[in-house]
Amino acid sequence: MAQQHGGHDRKAVRRIIDTALAEGRSALTAPEGRAVADAYGIATPHEAVAHSVEEAVGIADDLATPVVLKIVSRDILHKTEAGGVIVGLRTAEEIADGYRTVVANARRHDPNARIEGVQVQQMLDAGQEVIVGAVTDPTFGKVVAAGLGGGLVEGLQDVTFRLAPISQTDALSMLDGIAAAEILRGVRGGEPVDRDRLADLIRRVSDLVTDFPELAEVDLNPVLATGTAATAVDVRMLVDTASAAAPERFSEGQILAAMTRIMKPRGIAIIGASAEQGKIGNAVLKNPVNGGYTGGVYPINPKGGQILDREVYKSIADVPDEVDVAVFAVPAAFVPAALEEAGAKGVAGAVLIPSGFAETGNKELQDQVVEIARKHNVRILGPNIYGYYYTPEHISATFCTPYDMPGGVALTSQSGGIGMAILGFSRSAKMGVSAIVGVGNKADIDEDDLLTFFSADDNTHLIAMHLGALKGGRSFAEVAKRVSRSKPVVVLKAGRTDQGARAAGSHTGALAGNDKVYDDILRQSGVIRAPGLNDMLEYARGIPLLPTPKGENVVIITGAGGSGVLLSDACVDNGLSLMQIPPDLDRAFRAYIPPFGAAGNPVDITGGEPPSTYRNTIALGLADERIHALILGYWHTIVTPPMMFARLVAEVVEEYRQQGIEKPVVASLSGDVEVEQACDYLYQRGIVAYPYTTEKPVAVLGAKYRWARGAGLLRG
Amino acid sequence: MAQQHGGHDRKAVRRIIDTALAEGRSALTAPEGRAVADAYGIATPHEAVAHSVEEAVGIADDLATPVVLKIVSRDILHKTEAGGVIVGLRTAEEIADGYRTVVANARRHDPNARIEGVQVQQMLDAGQEVIVGAVTDPTFGKVVAAGLGGGLVEGLQDVTFRLAPISQTDALSMLDGIAAAEILRGVRGGEPVDRDRLADLIRRVSDLVTDFPELAEVDLNPVLATGTAATAVDVRMLVDTASAAAPERFSEGQILAAMTRIMKPRGIAIIGASAEQGKIGNAVLKNPVNGGYTGGVYPINPKGGQILDREVYKSIADVPDEVDVAVFAVPAAFVPAALEEAGAKGVAGAVLIPSGFAETGNKELQDQVVEIARKHNVRILGPNIYGYYYTPEHISATFCTPYDMPGGVALTSQSGGIGMAILGFSRSAKMGVSAIVGVGNKADIDEDDLLTFFSADDNTHLIAMHLGALKGGRSFAEVAKRVSRSKPVVVLKAGRTDQGARAAGSHTGALAGNDKVYDDILRQSGVIRAPGLNDMLEYARGIPLLPTPKGENVVIITGAGGSGVLLSDACVDNGLSLMQIPPDLDRAFRAYIPPFGAAGNPVDITGGEPPSTYRNTIALGLADERIHALILGYWHTIVTPPMMFARLVAEVVEEYRQQGIEKPVVASLSGDVEVEQACDYLYQRGIVAYPYTTEKPVAVLGAKYRWARGAGLLRG
Repeated sequence: MAQQHGGHDRKAVRRIIDTALAEGRSALTAPEGRAVADAYGIATPHEAVAHSVEEAVGIADDLATPVVLKIVSRDILHKTEAGGVIVGLRTAEEIADGYRTVVANARRHDPNARIEGVQVQQMLDAGQEVIVGAVTDPTFGKVVAAGLGGGLVEGLQDVTFRLAPISQTDALSMLDGIAAAEILRGVRGGEPVDRDRLADLIRRVSDLVTDFPELAEVDLNPVLATGTAATAVDVRMLVDTASAAAPERFSEGQILAAMTRIMKPRGIAIIGASAEQGKIGNAVLKNPVNGGYTGGVYPINPKGGQILDREVYKSIADVPDEVDVAVFAVPAAFVPAALEEAGAKGVAGAVLIPSGFAETGNKELQDQVVEIARKHNVRILGPNIYGYYYTPEHISATFCTPYDMPGGVALTSQSGGIGMAILGFSRSAKMGVSAIVGVGNKADIDEDDLLTFFSADDNTHLIAMHLGALKGGRSFAEVAKRVSRSKPVVVLKAGRTDQGARAAGSHTGALAGNDKVYDDILRQSGVIRAPGLNDMLEYARGIPLLPTPKGENVVIITGAGGSGVLLSDACVDNGLSLMQIPPDLDRAFRAYIPPFGAAGNPVDITGGEPPSTYRNTIALGLADERIHALILGYWHTIVTPPMMFARLVAEVVEEYRQQGIEKPVVASLSGDVEVEQACDYLYQRGIVAYPYTTEKPVAVLGAKYRWARGAGLLRG
Repeated sequence: MAQQHGGHDRKAVRRIIDTALAEGRSALTAPEGRAVADAYGIATPHEAVAHSVEEAVGIADDLATPVVLKIVSRDILHKTEAGGVIVGLRTAEEIADGYRTVVANARRHDPNARIEGVQVQQMLDAGQEVIVGAVTDPTFGKVVAAGLGGGLVEGLQDVTFRLAPISQTDALSMLDGIAAAEILRGVRGGEPVDRDRLADLIRRVSDLVTDFPELAEVDLNPVLATGTAATAVDVRMLVDTASAAAPERFSEGQILAAMTRIMKPRGIAIIGASAEQGKIGNAVLKNPVNGGYTGGVYPINPKGGQILDREVYKSIADVPDEVDVAVFAVPAAFVPAALEEAGAKGVAGAVLIPSGFAETGNKELQDQVVEIARKHNVRILGPNIYGYYYTPEHISATFCTPYDMPGGVALTSQSGGIGMAILGFSRSAKMGVSAIVGVGNKADIDEDDLLTFFSADDNTHLIAMHLGALKGGRSFAEVAKRVSRSKPVVVLKAGRTDQGARAAGSHTGALAGNDKVYDDILRQSGVIRAPGLNDMLEYARGIPLLPTPKGENVVIITGAGGSGVLLSDACVDNGLSLMQIPPDLDRAFRAYIPPFGAAGNPVDITGGEPPSTYRNTIALGLADERIHALILGYWHTIVTPPMMFARLVAEVVEEYRQQGIEKPVVASLSGDVEVEQACDYLYQRGIVAYPYTTEKPVAVLGAKYRWARGAGLLRG
């Protein structure tokens, strides 16, 4: 029975779960858990339940000694803590004594506990303790977990997560995804575990919770993994019908239709337009007009009159032309009535700038507004936002200053403060953007809607998103996985360290909501996670400029040995592989550098070299097709001053670009203040260059590589 | 015998080591290792060595069964891999069989191995496996290691290090310093180990290697730690007379005398001064003259004549006045002769700018130069450097551009490239410096000499050092520990990921030279380690501006909830404690913020608030003595534009400063480009402020806290 690996017996599981739910229980008993495991081919130890001392001795006689005794009680979840487990019993005497002890301990622990018997379980050969489980994450739904087990689970939290369902390949990648991966492969003479069998067990857990969403938590801890088996020694399962609910979702076609009308509207109405300088209703009207938007901009205000030489309509109903977007600059209390009118007019999007909704505790008003929107088939952006920019249409539908430098980066932020930082950074760094969008309370439109639009938008080549919590983590992960295959998706997840308080019914359960869940699932989805705000902004700026590398071979060419070492450190920190330079290439580099320079990698051309040395070695790095990316370390000298370096690098990169050879080139410039100008010059020419830092250029290159790997562009 | 905890029997150890060395061995046998352990009160299991099957059975009879059998052979280091260990033997038959098996396995493993017998060892109760050891690190000398043992050692490398000798307190801090610290304290019902006893064992290992430097490696793996005992199950010790050598060191008085003359010279001679523009010998002469140095600057060149209206001396011997420093701008080959002359003249320091020494493979020339310097009692800076700056004396003894913005930061760099980055950053960020020093090849003067000088230098308040390898890690650690109690020491250690190739004789041995050794020992020394170049520079710039906090209570006051979350994340990343705001203080904050704002921590004053709200809440944060540091999050709005925010913050901070209330205040500014000017304004007034990043201001505050904790300023 323990080694049964056939198909899944769904009926048996359904029966057990239904019984538990009918009895109002939230946990399966140990025998029920084992039966569920058996039904899905998850191996458990040979065992039986005894209801008397004599029965226990009899069962033990049938099993190979030694045995473990475990109390069976639906009222006792943590058996060990209740003194309900005794291991290593061999003789009939020991087993009889043991039986009496666990029952007495359980009674002492909880005098009201219903004791159903004592499990007599075969003790397994020594193996590696692993934890395998599944949990219903508040953001992502069913999530499978695996990691090193035993007492170390809590101590080290070396556990990895995947969205269920998973494939066998996913399960194997989980075993590689933990810090202790080497231990499972067997280190220093330790026996390697049967990884395929262990992965198979993880996949079966995934199948189980996918087929039965009512299984809120599955906790196999420990699973004993050996060279030939993977056996779930202890099985704990929790049931909860609420775990089975699935959120409402729009189809991709619906999302695209609405988002396209919002981003490329035929007309925009400004609800609450004002003639008064400094008022939001004034700024929101002026920005699209002054920003160069060519569609109609219609001020709406019950007072009527004229603003900016435009007729003010008393109601949106009076606007004679098509209106796709209504921007609301009225207090929250006036939104429902105005939204009814906008809905009746047939707008696709309502941009709700005002605050005073869920963020101030007024969830009812927000729900009411969403209900009105649904009735009229209107999508809501916000409320509680600065608005949005879409440069291809010259839209600055916001009370902030206009932004009009077009480019391929779309950025979104949950918070207005971060939105302003995005705007300031973009302007300061001269970063071209396609869109900047505030999502605020996300009463309706959220990150997956935006991802879906930007994915299809030819003006957008990279999407960067600041987000707090995801509304629907699973759908975001699914959309991101698809989008990131063609366009890099950068995410700054705020609240990383806010694990939330969660009552834990199991070891695995305690891990849900953990930032590690986000981290693993975002990575699985091909998302580049930025560790901080500035990183997100620099990744957004730099990644689109760099061509996609064709392989993993990175070469550092540096004028300063000291920079070379720091750049190498940064490569390791960012998961980049320094190429092992083959002898012929080494000779080729040596031909250009002084005899006391160092070929190898970094290629140290030494300080005090003329521009030709930089030029020749960089050209070689671009020409040799075994090299896939270059990191340059520049040292300011009189012989090769900063702008001379910048010009020669831009020239040689352009020269090879003309020949169809494009490789990512990043640069760290060490020198006096003139290096700042040189970095600007280089950046404008597609070479990601920074002064006074060896970390940033390498971090941007590393982010590009993470994306390319996730998108499957570096295989083979 | 295993539980003997008395004094140390040095004579016994001396006898064993001398025997091993006399026999030309590099390893002690297992019984020897055990005897050494016994002599230092390190508990080992009850055991004896058998030389026949019968003897083995007899010994086992005396011990409590089960037993372990281990081959004893000086030729077999890794017994398990040789099949020389069998565990869990109980009956006489099993033991007899086992004896024959381990001997046969050993013979097969190495037919030439001398087999001295078979150890019969009592099997211990289950406990936590720990590794304890000591190793002779190439940089730091004797280093003690402790961590989680068993198969996990290699997999997780959860090991921590300390310079030997250590105290019992140090040893306890090691047990807290590993990721698995909780496991040793007992998690989820697991038995906690006897930490005092385990720490005592670590301390005894430290005593042992301190008393006997010839013990190159000590490897107790595993040590079995239980609730009542800590027993070294396996003992491996390597001996090596080379491990006992101690490097030559100058006394603090000698260092200070020489360094003071170098930094505050009565006169500077420029060896190889040149009239030709663009030559190093020209720049090195011009810079001190133009930089405002008021002492004598004497050009030396065999050609004589005049440069910059100064008489050129044909030899330094001809200079009529006192000369404390000679700057060499001649090719390497001419240095020895010129140094003889400078030495005869009585200079204190020779600043060797030329390259062509050890860095190009010419170690002989470098050694020759050091020998000449020693003869004349001259200290050497370099060779292969850009020179040095000391602004209090207006010295720019370098071929780079002069720098004259005085301030309290002393920076050193091993590499010229990094030195140029320091110069450029300092100028760009308007960072006042006391000194910038290149150390290059460190033929003589190294980081501990510089630390010793800057420690005593009233013009220096913080020392930041870029270093590759330390020449003498132990003396650096000792000096740094002393200096960092009064002045922050920031270190950027390059080559973090270069573990070097090292043949490992033991588990612990494999860990030497690891970056973790640097990391642990630098932290122990109170050094603030910067993760990257830019971090080092920003720490150097910001830390001296911030007053030292009086406690751990950090409060975030923010206008943007989104920034508040990111700032909270950054606090956790940087080891800062967000204060739990007591109810009365919460009420006080609430009095100033809108009803839908959030008190608690972060204090979210919400966007759109006027300057008075920022002002009132910041004033409260400064006034309440339970709060020790403030992090401000600013959100650019029309109501409170960037410069208005900057002025109000500077004002209120100054107001409290006048009342004697000084707390560190850092700020993250989110907004359009005007926030850059606002940050400059704030920084100049002692408020560490950055635009477009929530990470940097918190990282600088975190670095200040790390220093303050290490310096013992936050206790109690």
